[in-house]
Amino acid sequence: MLPPVCILGLGLIGGSLMRDLSARGERVYGYNRSRSATRAAQKEGFGVSSDLAETLARASGDNALLVVAVPMDAVAEVFDAVAEHAPHCGITDVVSVKKPVYDLVRARGLEGQYVGGHPMSGTENSGWGASQEGLFHRAAWAVTYDWADELDAAGTTVPESWSELFTQVCALAALTGAEAVPVSVGRHDEAVARVSHLPHVIAEALAIVGDHGGTLAQSLAAGSFKGATRVAGTDPSLVRNMCETNAEALVPVLDEYLTLLTRTRDSLSGDNPSIQSLAEAGNRAYVRMGARSGARRESVSPVKISSRPVMRVHPGGPGWVKQLKQIEALGGRVEVF
Amino acid sequence: MLPPVCILGLGLIGGSLMRDLSARGERVYGYNRSRSATRAAQKEGFGVSSDLAETLARASGDNALLVVAVPMDAVAEVFDAVAEHAPHCGITDVVSVKKPVYDLVRARGLEGQYVGGHPMSGTENSGWGASQEGLFHRAAWAVTYDWADELDAAGTTVPESWSELFTQVCALAALTGAEAVPVSVGRHDEAVARVSHLPHVIAEALAIVGDHGGTLAQSLAAGSFKGATRVAGTDPSLVRNMCETNAEALVPVLDEYLTLLTRTRDSLSGDNPSIQSLAEAGNRAYVRMGARSGARRESVSPVKISSRPVMRVHPGGPGWVKQLKQIEALGGRVEVF
Repeated sequence: MLPPVCILGLGLIGGSLMRDLSARGERVYGYNRSRSATRAAQKEGFGVSSDLAETLARASGDNALLVVAVPMDAVAEVFDAVAEHAPHCGITDVVSVKKPVYDLVRARGLEGQYVGGHPMSGTENSGWGASQEGLFHRAAWAVTYDWADELDAAGTTVPESWSELFTQVCALAALTGAEAVPVSVGRHDEAVARVSHLPHVIAEALAIVGDHGGTLAQSLAAGSFKGATRVAGTDPSLVRNMCETNAEALVPVLDEYLTLLTRTRDSLSGDNPSIQSLAEAGNRAYVRMGARSGARRESVSPVKISSRPVMRVHPGGPGWVKQLKQIEALGGRVEVF
Repeated sequence: MLPPVCILGLGLIGGSLMRDLSARGERVYGYNRSRSATRAAQKEGFGVSSDLAETLARASGDNALLVVAVPMDAVAEVFDAVAEHAPHCGITDVVSVKKPVYDLVRARGLEGQYVGGHPMSGTENSGWGASQEGLFHRAAWAVTYDWADELDAAGTTVPESWSELFTQVCALAALTGAEAVPVSVGRHDEAVARVSHLPHVIAEALAIVGDHGGTLAQSLAAGSFKGATRVAGTDPSLVRNMCETNAEALVPVLDEYLTLLTRTRDSLSGDNPSIQSLAEAGNRAYVRMGARSGARRESVSPVKISSRPVMRVHPGGPGWVKQLKQIEALGGRVEVF
């Protein structure tokens, strides 16, 4: 179902994707700026080059699916190279913000050959050396469809080439064991501000406050601290890339969080310190959030059943864009056929 | 080295301690208020009763070491029962705040037979059903020594009965595989406000903000969110017990955290959104905090070497209380002999 896949940027995400596709027997090759990482990947037998123009020329000849997997601050440059060297290839990406990427797509008139993506998986480590097979197993893989939605709203039929590209991106996600979750770029960025970028900001701030406690706090830190600060191990430049480019969505979410904590601070500092309201609401929210994460706990089958509702969709078929909107409203996943 | 151990309260911590001591062949029995948990423990062959007075009478006859393992809001009642039914037993505890417990100890004139404790380990689950062998392996086990410090500062010799009790509490921790970290109640409460209670508050607030993102946010939540919210799964009444009774130490720490985040919010909302300062300081703090947690990563020996500095101390020996103060300043651990 997939054409050859050309991955541009082989860090944690791009590298792990290359490993998965290769393990599944798909044709995959790619580009990486760092020559040392390129050599490391070549030694493992992967088709990797540090020459972007050459890699894109090959992709153009292959009619490959391009996966942009560089940090946000390098995306514009890569798009420019794509427009020059592989102007007819379908493009997807794995960048953790979607509106800023889509703005760059629009500015270059590439909407007709772009379907955005974002696998919700990672570790605190980065670079090819941290990449691993199976990283995306059971993860949500956000797949954007704004252009199709705009056309559909205007009563225009979505071109077959675009629905074919959408199918390819969903198939790519499925090959890694991930679940394709359709979402508009705006709703994506607001949701990940809550569940990914805010946790990164929190982790950095908590690490600092813990460290202010000196060697004793270091010595006493245990599971709750380690769990909440793990992602502060992420390369700061990657955290900046995510949070700064999504500032528009992140600031209101941070305000919501600060309001909650300020109220908690006040109810803790009175004569009868209380965090009843926070603790009870937080525990209820935790239970709700857990109900939708990955496989159901109560499943006794060796085949774990996803707890995300599923809808089977035929891209290009009647009403398919409206079906995507319905799934999005449920936070569900799509299976293409 | 240990007398019989009598554990009062068999939730996650008390229950896990009972399992560890029993597995090591120590004499251990206990009390639990909940009859269903008592029956469950009895079925597994543990000597557990729901009659507090009877249990304490047995402990008194045995000259057992009492371990108070009930939530903070039940400690006063248990101390009163101890004063009535087992007035000569040595007492320790595993409660997550130390000054409020010590205030209750002082109010009853029990300082001479009390050494506080707090194992820095747990899960988001509670009750006997969640208890497990090995929970404290490699964890820090805070051991308080304020009374000895006061006597020492006043030039008074610490009674042998108290240094013997200190030895027993360190031996108890060592039997579970934990590392005894000496600490005053005030410094303990300030440090755990940073590395345990703040993470709990954060987890609750983050769970709420994530949940406000609805089903889509639920669906996209991944590792960073799950890691940072895990402890919001804790029974809210236990979170309240910890945070509300440690409000005096927690509020200033929360203020420090809020100041950091408010500054970050402001630098993110400008024309050139930046979190450079937070991301870089956070990452450095993360690295420092990691340097002191548990076994060294680079160790190739199958016997993992603790990264906490160790000092061997003979309780009751010359200068031993000053040695504890030195270890405390390093966040180190003590081995008693």
